[in-house]
Amino acid sequence: MIWQRKHILGMRDLEAEEINLILETAESFKEISTRTIKKVPTMRGKTVVNLFFEPSTRTRTSFEIAAKRLSADTINFTVSASSVSKGETLIDTARNIEAMNPDIIVTRHSAGGAPYLLSKYVNSSIINAGDGAHEHPSQALLDMLTVKEQKGKLKGLKLAIIGDISHSRVARSNIFGFTKMGVEVRVAGPATLIPVDIEKMGVGVFYRIEQAIEEADIIMMLRIQMERQKGQLFPTLREYSRFYSLDLKRLKLAKEDVTIMHPGPINRGIEISPEVADGPYSVILNQVTNGVAVRMALLYLLAGGGDLD
Amino acid sequence: MIWQRKHILGMRDLEAEEINLILETAESFKEISTRTIKKVPTMRGKTVVNLFFEPSTRTRTSFEIAAKRLSADTINFTVSASSVSKGETLIDTARNIEAMNPDIIVTRHSAGGAPYLLSKYVNSSIINAGDGAHEHPSQALLDMLTVKEQKGKLKGLKLAIIGDISHSRVARSNIFGFTKMGVEVRVAGPATLIPVDIEKMGVGVFYRIEQAIEEADIIMMLRIQMERQKGQLFPTLREYSRFYSLDLKRLKLAKEDVTIMHPGPINRGIEISPEVADGPYSVILNQVTNGVAVRMALLYLLAGGGDLD
Amino acid sequence: MIWQRKHILGMRDLEAEEINLILETAESFKEISTRTIKKVPTMRGKTVVNLFFEPSTRTRTSFEIAAKRLSADTINFTVSASSVSKGETLIDTARNIEAMNPDIIVTRHSAGGAPYLLSKYVNSSIINAGDGAHEHPSQALLDMLTVKEQKGKLKGLKLAIIGDISHSRVARSNIFGFTKMGVEVRVAGPATLIPVDIEKMGVGVFYRIEQAIEEADIIMMLRIQMERQKGQLFPTLREYSRFYSLDLKRLKLAKEDVTIMHPGPINRGIEISPEVADGPYSVILNQVTNGVAVRMALLYLLAGGGDLD
Repeated sequence: MIWQRKHILGMRDLEAEEINLILETAESFKEISTRTIKKVPTMRGKTVVNLFFEPSTRTRTSFEIAAKRLSADTINFTVSASSVSKGETLIDTARNIEAMNPDIIVTRHSAGGAPYLLSKYVNSSIINAGDGAHEHPSQALLDMLTVKEQKGKLKGLKLAIIGDISHSRVARSNIFGFTKMGVEVRVAGPATLIPVDIEKMGVGVFYRIEQAIEEADIIMMLRIQMERQKGQLFPTLREYSRFYSLDLKRLKLAKEDVTIMHPGPINRGIEISPEVADGPYSVILNQVTNGVAVRMALLYLLAGGGDLD
Repeated sequence: MIWQRKHILGMRDLEAEEINLILETAESFKEISTRTIKKVPTMRGKTVVNLFFEPSTRTRTSFEIAAKRLSADTINFTVSASSVSKGETLIDTARNIEAMNPDIIVTRHSAGGAPYLLSKYVNSSIINAGDGAHEHPSQALLDMLTVKEQKGKLKGLKLAIIGDISHSRVARSNIFGFTKMGVEVRVAGPATLIPVDIEKMGVGVFYRIEQAIEEADIIMMLRIQMERQKGQLFPTLREYSRFYSLDLKRLKLAKEDVTIMHPGPINRGIEISPEVADGPYSVILNQVTNGVAVRMALLYLLAGGGDLD
Repeated sequence: MIWQRKHILGMRDLEAEEINLILETAESFKEISTRTIKKVPTMRGKTVVNLFFEPSTRTRTSFEIAAKRLSADTINFTVSASSVSKGETLIDTARNIEAMNPDIIVTRHSAGGAPYLLSKYVNSSIINAGDGAHEHPSQALLDMLTVKEQKGKLKGLKLAIIGDISHSRVARSNIFGFTKMGVEVRVAGPATLIPVDIEKMGVGVFYRIEQAIEEADIIMMLRIQMERQKGQLFPTLREYSRFYSLDLKRLKLAKEDVTIMHPGPINRGIEISPEVADGPYSVILNQVTNGVAVRMALLYLLAGGGDLD
């Protein structure tokens, strides 16, 4: 297929065929990051702006490294929420950036839907690097690349996602992406952290981790946000950990060759035990490595492709 | 003419001939930002340091993009006021930067005159990116480029600048620049926000917006700083807006082909109505685009010119 | 000799032969920063990450300029102490960076030993850019380069280091480095700011500045940290300054061709008088210039050397 899409806003929009092309492109880019000279001239003279309305060192760094390995110029434009509230609207900020002729704007915002709004008002390509509790498509794509590497396929696998499903853009994007590729997705967490009607997304819902991970090929643990405790969505960290943490004992319920994932940063001893996080089934750092490759693929495809060195 | 000047400190210093050369150079650079490969090798191996003592994402980004499109290396050096007050003087900070052999230092400081001081103590070229309420020459130059594009000339036009004239480095630099090029400049605002003796700068002074914009070719609205209200320089935002906002009704007093400008970020509904800001006469985003071109021209001329790709 | 070492963690580890190679390499790099095109392609396609757990604009900028003049891609990754305390360990953060395939990680941390720990857990080369009160090897190396330039040699010289020896990583790294190269090192400061047993590092200890600087070839003044006063380690700034400041009168006790150094930023009138800081014996700004050259040498050697343009 030939890439046609202008923006990467969410996994909900992407077709299976497009996902496959992104993953294949990312696979070919992975090798570049292991070369002595980790750089191809593909995007020389292109400008990529990281327009972040929420602080994020990790995701921003991953996109910045990806852009630099493609020889693009990168600009970090971090807007504190306070400065936006001082009068300029989101769209005015974006139009200002746009007026400087960037090729691609990578954006993160605390409000779900913000990148969709931007895509209607600016001419540059937009990549959603996380919008509220809504979507985080590059994370889902790097997760899919990691699973594909581990299992050689996606179709027919069983994936369990455990934790705070309600507030997780990672969970949502992964549910859209994996179900689209024929993966059976199950979610589990405290009832207060599972959205009502989530079955409609085509997933199985469980309230006990043991049930969800039974015979799972992949377990994806979500980061627990400590601050949710104040909202009384779960009683105490200790109790959360007792019922939903992935430890060696629970791990035995999954398939023998289970793959353990986590979007990071991990809370050691809370949602995942150190033995599991650092153990032989964990691919948490492979996910980070694949993050750079997937983001290179997205930038490359949106910039119009072209020859690779 | 051949460019001789080492620093860009203010519009007050620049000769009309120099302004013309900057604007012509900027015009030729504008095209580069619309190419597929938006980059020329002119400043390869040159170092541009953005030495900002005041936070400014927008102006810093514009200079950074300009430098990168000329292939210069850019370094952002942001110094919080608190860290300067911890003992090191402004000049010591600048001499330290200087010792790392940058070619050009772009600087912003809350104190008027700071870039002038620096230019006496360091060997690099200095570009003033805004000093207190004193000058902001690259803003004035991009405004002049925008007017020249719209009207095909500068001489003989009528420009009205509306708002807080007293605290505006944008207003001051534009008054110096436009009057030098034969433009008739008028200012208007509440009496508390107009400097005493401003007539000596060669401008007409009005206290009602309606008088100032009558038959104007260009109207430049200034951003109202909300915090001035606390100093009781104007009563309420609502009252300010009622008397000094540019709306569709007032717009009719100006020439039929009037051009509307604003240095941004705009306060929608305060100093300018959304209909005017987004309307057909507004060139607010052209100003931003021209900002990159003007800053490329300044960097290029100060770095000694040279071949363009 | 051929460079073998993978990390630069401290001066304590380095052999005299290695120090000589670094200084010679730095000397050859110094010239690059004075060229019209201040850039060699040696590290094209290499990624250097500045992983700073403590804010530091000056040292980070020096490394960033060094990396860019070698054509490396640079990424600034600043982690606030608060975000680290939010659950992710130092090692997890570093492993995440590592997974993005950087070639060299330059790191600063408030805890002594942090870079040593990192070097055991990641595969990239680590450069210690300052760890607590422990070591700051690139500072010592730039100091040694500066002395070598001034005196033509190191061996047999007398160096006096004055100030807060206890809390100074600069002092510690310089003591390790200079004694190794055959320099006689003396330290002086208030008894509360001199570590017990420091004689074991091979230095002479004095409590009066006059004694320490007598016949010194080089005097290195340390920056006094104002906040130490609260810990009652010295009575008042005024009294500290009276007893330990380097002024013109005291300067006469040293050799006639004495060299005055300071790691910066200087507190004018506190540990050093303006006349001395700006006087003919001061090489404070040469130190900054040499900082870029030494850091280029370190990056170059750790990246495996290679041809210079």
